[in-house]
Amino acid sequence: MGRVQISVIGSGAEHERRAEEVGRLLAAAGATVVTGGLGEVMAAAARGAKSVGGTTIGILPGERRDEANEWCDHVVVTGVGHARNLAVVASGDAVIAVGGRHGTLAEIGFALVLGRRVVVLEPGLDAEGVVRAATPAEAVALALEAAA
Amino acid sequence: MGRVQISVIGSGAEHERRAEEVGRLLAAAGATVVTGGLGEVMAAAARGAKSVGGTTIGILPGERRDEANEWCDHVVVTGVGHARNLAVVASGDAVIAVGGRHGTLAEIGFALVLGRRVVVLEPGLDAEGVVRAATPAEAVALALEAAA
Amino acid sequence: MGRVQISVIGSGAEHERRAEEVGRLLAAAGATVVTGGLGEVMAAAARGAKSVGGTTIGILPGERRDEANEWCDHVVVTGVGHARNLAVVASGDAVIAVGGRHGTLAEIGFALVLGRRVVVLEPGLDAEGVVRAATPAEAVALALEAAA
Amino acid sequence: MGRVQISVIGSGAEHERRAEEVGRLLAAAGATVVTGGLGEVMAAAARGAKSVGGTTIGILPGERRDEANEWCDHVVVTGVGHARNLAVVASGDAVIAVGGRHGTLAEIGFALVLGRRVVVLEPGLDAEGVVRAATPAEAVALALEAAA
Repeated sequence: MGRVQISVIGSGAEHERRAEEVGRLLAAAGATVVTGGLGEVMAAAARGAKSVGGTTIGILPGERRDEANEWCDHVVVTGVGHARNLAVVASGDAVIAVGGRHGTLAEIGFALVLGRRVVVLEPGLDAEGVVRAATPAEAVALALEAAA
Repeated sequence: MGRVQISVIGSGAEHERRAEEVGRLLAAAGATVVTGGLGEVMAAAARGAKSVGGTTIGILPGERRDEANEWCDHVVVTGVGHARNLAVVASGDAVIAVGGRHGTLAEIGFALVLGRRVVVLEPGLDAEGVVRAATPAEAVALALEAAA
Repeated sequence: MGRVQISVIGSGAEHERRAEEVGRLLAAAGATVVTGGLGEVMAAAARGAKSVGGTTIGILPGERRDEANEWCDHVVVTGVGHARNLAVVASGDAVIAVGGRHGTLAEIGFALVLGRRVVVLEPGLDAEGVVRAATPAEAVALALEAAA
Repeated sequence: MGRVQISVIGSGAEHERRAEEVGRLLAAAGATVVTGGLGEVMAAAARGAKSVGGTTIGILPGERRDEANEWCDHVVVTGVGHARNLAVVASGDAVIAVGGRHGTLAEIGFALVLGRRVVVLEPGLDAEGVVRAATPAEAVALALEAAA
């Protein structure tokens, strides 16, 4: 099946630093980082992965490739708007949520429907069925464990 | 814009009676009842609406019209799997959640992203940004108020 | 399964008169007319159906119900952009194409993938596997025959 | 924007050899090969790309990553069924069609809607607005020209 793919979801500028650390640790462990390809948490996670030479995939809601942030190695342009959230979480062997609001809630719901482990990095959204992590390192470990 | 459309989302056989009452009250108030077109809460809400001569729309995830329950007057076959959840909530002028698990959580997230009021009938899922109702009558009143 | 649903697809202002006639004849025969809910051929088919008291469904690509034309009784807001073309043809027991360009070609392809009969009203698009009709009356008869 | 991405679409076991050659030439020119991730033409194009050390992306219709063929380096799991065809062509800076039937017709339609150049390798599907190529080398040259 090729390399492990972990999806990093979420939003909020105040969460970028933690998202970048999550991306960096995932890439250092050899996992490909999958995100929604746009700004804030998505860009930060991809930037963190690229800072250590990792591989990143951005899955966009719109119809144009150039809407992706510059840290996406591979860009998938879905054209299906918010329904691309389903593709983002379905493409991960596990999912890590960093911050986030309503769109992230939709992604968590879909990930759980599909049986993907969802790790919520504290402080984060509440949802039944997720696993919670206190630090980026713990979140990455829990995600990689589920992906194995 | 034609008649008010209210989406009823959720799942769980134990919630069918309340869903049927929600559907009945919505139809009695002249609203079209939109659901995901399948079983349990979706079927119950549509059945309630039909019991008083209401109008119902079922929005299916699969590719075949005959997967809809028998209480759907109009059937939309989306072919997009769980991404049809986006269509279910987007098609409502407001949304009422009755029971439900992960798929309902995804729908609540999408509804809030799109700015639709989400009324959660107690006991129901927790999510920031929703309005809570103690009874089917209150849920219907709150949904119709937002749709007005 | 409720009433027969026939999807009318296509585009081009020069085809509106024929689309309106198709919508009128479908509604007169008791079929619900399904369209993409926007302008030109979509609006004309729905207008034709309403001119004889028929029932219409509009399936929109965007996220707002008020983008539907005024002849849609029931509006489904998919939020999935051009992927709503799949829903438009999947929701018909058969499909009639009036005029059209690239988007209509995508719809014809999807309809054939799903095993729906596609009737192309002359002059219309070329595609292997479709049935061709010389007049609106013949197109409607061929669509209703497949839907039966 | 990173490396050029070219989508290869189509189907039919009898077209696999030409698809493999297209994949090989695209990869040799430094382009990432995007496909629908499943069998026949999709697998052949990816296999060709990998035979010269290229990079491949597979965009799946289902909900499981392990449905991808073994030549996909990066797998996007869309969960949206045939609507993933939109993502396949939208993710290419240009599109090459090799063989194919109804699903490919839908993809050609979508690619043209989105303004992507579509190169049809002869013998191939007919559609207004596409560019035709007599050989895999010519198809690749025409696709790369449009992507530049």
